[in-house]
Amino acid sequence: MNQDTLIVPAPPDEPYTRVVPLGGCGEIGRNMTVVETNDDLVVVDCGLMFPDDEMFGVDVVINDFTYVRERAHKLRAVLVTHGHEDHIGGIPYFLKEFPNTPVVGTPLSIALIKAKAREHKFETMEFVTVNPGDRIRYGSIETEFIHINHSVAGACALALRTPVGIVFHTGDFKFDQTPIDNKPADFARIARVGDEGVLLMLSDSTNAERPGHTLSERIVGEAFTSIFQRAKGRLVIASFASNVPRIQQAVDHAVRFGRKIAFLGRSMQNVVHFASELGHLRIPPDTVIRIEDVDSYPPERVCVVTTGSQGEPMSGLSRMSVRDHKKFKIVPGDTVVISATPIPGNEKSVYKTINNLCKLGANVIHGTDGRSHVSGHASQEELLLMLNLVRPEFFVPIHGEYRMLVQHGRLAVETGVEPGNVFVVENGDVIEFTREYGDKIGKTYGGNVLVDGTGIGDIGEAVLRDRKALSNDGIMVVVIAIDSEEARVIGEPDLVSKGVFYIPESDGVLDELRSELRNAIAEVSVEGIRDVNTVKEHIRGTLARAVHARTKRRPVVIPIVMEV
Amino acid sequence: MNQDTLIVPAPPDEPYTRVVPLGGCGEIGRNMTVVETNDDLVVVDCGLMFPDDEMFGVDVVINDFTYVRERAHKLRAVLVTHGHEDHIGGIPYFLKEFPNTPVVGTPLSIALIKAKAREHKFETMEFVTVNPGDRIRYGSIETEFIHINHSVAGACALALRTPVGIVFHTGDFKFDQTPIDNKPADFARIARVGDEGVLLMLSDSTNAERPGHTLSERIVGEAFTSIFQRAKGRLVIASFASNVPRIQQAVDHAVRFGRKIAFLGRSMQNVVHFASELGHLRIPPDTVIRIEDVDSYPPERVCVVTTGSQGEPMSGLSRMSVRDHKKFKIVPGDTVVISATPIPGNEKSVYKTINNLCKLGANVIHGTDGRSHVSGHASQEELLLMLNLVRPEFFVPIHGEYRMLVQHGRLAVETGVEPGNVFVVENGDVIEFTREYGDKIGKTYGGNVLVDGTGIGDIGEAVLRDRKALSNDGIMVVVIAIDSEEARVIGEPDLVSKGVFYIPESDGVLDELRSELRNAIAEVSVEGIRDVNTVKEHIRGTLARAVHARTKRRPVVIPIVMEV
Repeated sequence: MNQDTLIVPAPPDEPYTRVVPLGGCGEIGRNMTVVETNDDLVVVDCGLMFPDDEMFGVDVVINDFTYVRERAHKLRAVLVTHGHEDHIGGIPYFLKEFPNTPVVGTPLSIALIKAKAREHKFETMEFVTVNPGDRIRYGSIETEFIHINHSVAGACALALRTPVGIVFHTGDFKFDQTPIDNKPADFARIARVGDEGVLLMLSDSTNAERPGHTLSERIVGEAFTSIFQRAKGRLVIASFASNVPRIQQAVDHAVRFGRKIAFLGRSMQNVVHFASELGHLRIPPDTVIRIEDVDSYPPERVCVVTTGSQGEPMSGLSRMSVRDHKKFKIVPGDTVVISATPIPGNEKSVYKTINNLCKLGANVIHGTDGRSHVSGHASQEELLLMLNLVRPEFFVPIHGEYRMLVQHGRLAVETGVEPGNVFVVENGDVIEFTREYGDKIGKTYGGNVLVDGTGIGDIGEAVLRDRKALSNDGIMVVVIAIDSEEARVIGEPDLVSKGVFYIPESDGVLDELRSELRNAIAEVSVEGIRDVNTVKEHIRGTLARAVHARTKRRPVVIPIVMEV
Repeated sequence: MNQDTLIVPAPPDEPYTRVVPLGGCGEIGRNMTVVETNDDLVVVDCGLMFPDDEMFGVDVVINDFTYVRERAHKLRAVLVTHGHEDHIGGIPYFLKEFPNTPVVGTPLSIALIKAKAREHKFETMEFVTVNPGDRIRYGSIETEFIHINHSVAGACALALRTPVGIVFHTGDFKFDQTPIDNKPADFARIARVGDEGVLLMLSDSTNAERPGHTLSERIVGEAFTSIFQRAKGRLVIASFASNVPRIQQAVDHAVRFGRKIAFLGRSMQNVVHFASELGHLRIPPDTVIRIEDVDSYPPERVCVVTTGSQGEPMSGLSRMSVRDHKKFKIVPGDTVVISATPIPGNEKSVYKTINNLCKLGANVIHGTDGRSHVSGHASQEELLLMLNLVRPEFFVPIHGEYRMLVQHGRLAVETGVEPGNVFVVENGDVIEFTREYGDKIGKTYGGNVLVDGTGIGDIGEAVLRDRKALSNDGIMVVVIAIDSEEARVIGEPDLVSKGVFYIPESDGVLDELRSELRNAIAEVSVEGIRDVNTVKEHIRGTLARAVHARTKRRPVVIPIVMEV
């Protein structure tokens, strides 16, 4: 990162509000936005992102908390829009550094964060549960939670009232006119906030490239009806565990068509438990059975609701697909519904799972063609409606890849936002508002922090480059012992390779390489041997050239000189 | 692979025809099918596949030629349906093993194979050029080349007449009623072959899950018209180099709207050269300019046609997107059209390229929404039409993932093929036909052969597992020197790590680990030291545990004991 660009000017003397998206702009994942006034600072969401193919060995990716760290004395709360991983997954890491920060959200969000905290072995945390419609004040910032629709229960948009004006953060949303819980987004309240005058809106850009209107969750119900009507054997429905409306639809259909339900996967069971307790999920008594008991029911009386819609290797569905699940085996005649679309990057594993299920004889229904899934994010018509309801003076598209942010910015201009007032930002851009102006005024650290094992942020470009090189052509280690007093090589060079050759067939190659190394060492003069680096470079170069000449491969070569 | 399943019974005494798909069934790529009679054997296509994420360091994937090798005396020819990589890319490897086998195809296919052979430094090869409508006989097998539509010029279906019956191989196809070259598929000839009575049809399953009819290439022309009308600055169109119809449309539009064309990318320039020579591509004089000369024309007079529609890192478009292209820099106002859809697995790199182009200010048009791309493969209605034209007795869906093959099999049954006569096969399944029966009779080697550098097939599961382990958490090498006579450790253990820690910050860790190793070595008894394997296992275990306790990482640990 270019240090020159990391200049955050001192705040002005007059009242100001700063908004700093730290993650989620230019990517899908690790959403986090700082809202800061003269005296107070709140964080909206703190998510994680899963590593991409180039982040070898990395477990998860979180945000750089430097901006908050430098202003820790002003930190008042973490406000949570909804309970998806890309909005709450970073909270345990955040709380490790900023313990006892109140975490504020609706009941299901809080339940999901609590479950996560338990995994991370947190003992005490301060949770504040709010309901849609509630307002909560931290110093100069008063936040109103407003009900919107999304693919998880309890999702809210936030209206943050600051001395300079209202910052409206949509969270992840869609406008579902016929949602399963019969609660469309709170249009009246959103419009009223718009009437008050909104300084800045930050809005979900996931589907900004999609024309039209995202289909209602109700449509999935119609698809389920037709699937339940036709399925003769057992039904398996895979979905995101947090998609409570989807689970509700599976439950409703199971009840209607006389099937018992077994829930599979720990996160699925967790969410079903919390969501039922909180009243988001209504399951009639005697509907749920244990997965162990599935075989005691006729196939046409069974519906399994499972995790694994993304082909995650350890999930219920993936295990079923390779007959690796102890408690449930797919048999011909089973119908499997993948009620989700692959997140970009997951296509291959999802299709692998589907192919394996087909091989076992299952009838697999997938894709949006069958309408067995609808998106949880607003398409263009809904984004335009949100812009027209809120009518913000300034607009920052968030939650999306760059191409989506650009497109969302264009939509804002179409609704009348001044082109100069639309900021297509990158993570770490600092946007400042006073009563006089609103502008991008600087840049803070908005980069990735990679988590590998217990190491947070200690894995960087250099380590990833090494891992990539190792993965490409493996590694060869050559060890020679040197009598440093007499400056002579003792014994034979030792050669170890890993990931370069298939050893049983390449013993001959190793012998040849050893012999080339012997010759190379013999060439080194006594002066050369006294300089360990010369010896090392000579054997490294010799070995690298010899391997490349034979195989055109370029393994990492590590020469070790033992001085004895 | 289970050796038990690799049983290919002896051929019957009566006339027989065997069909053996060696690649392309259960995957997209490396298409290859053997057609064999009592005395003769031909290979239809010989493609390659690109490695997936788990095939670390592998360059390309080809087929196992064992079945052909065991019958090399009967090998007569390689018949090529069309010139795509997944149909011709394996030919150089095949010819290395079976030199001088005639390679038979239409002119553009042969030109593309010749270019490929030059890269592999082949001196002499036997090429046989045929035209659609031609028949060519090799022993008991007479093959008729039949014109069909696809996203490359000169694509053919093959009717292979054998003593037992006709094997009809569709190649990759679509039915385009309004193709750019005004030559729809040769329906009459296909229907006539159907009238003769077809024993077995093998058909392209790529789009077997897609309802309806694939749109005509002409539709892309309409999209191009609207794009050319609106674009004020320069236009960049990215496409597969081999998509000659698409290039023709770009050329036609450039001419119509008064733009000069520069072709970018070596494969693009190759194809343009061959296709022009062969009359597949018609470019008026004074239309093509060099990429170096683009800047001497006004932006609205320039159209660049480039490779890189799949986000390939070294391609023209990818380089432009990161300002790494020496001869062409994207500027705000440029319009970039990605006239292709990402091949599964390429989504992330394609979207990365698009995002980068957006950041440079380009207006990027992508996806099939804008109709700037149509598929080259038949959807369900066309697959059904092909089945109804050919009316085969037996049916084998090829060219697709398992889920697609299953779906295509269902379509065949819908047109009246006996369910028992539809074989959804895996690579290596041997299907045998006599005048009495047709059945899956055994299995031969149908697995992957991985090519890494000059090594063909020497990289297997073990090496890939090693590379994966290395990529996950890196490697640590610990070396100790032992005085074998006195059975004592000499000096300090030497410790080298790669891809485990970020070194500058972890020197402390390495010191701690060294100290733990010293203690561990001190624990080893004299007897233990005499047994090198005991020492090795002890220090390996100590180091692995120490690293895991500190970091929760599990690097590969290699202990080396030097006996001096």
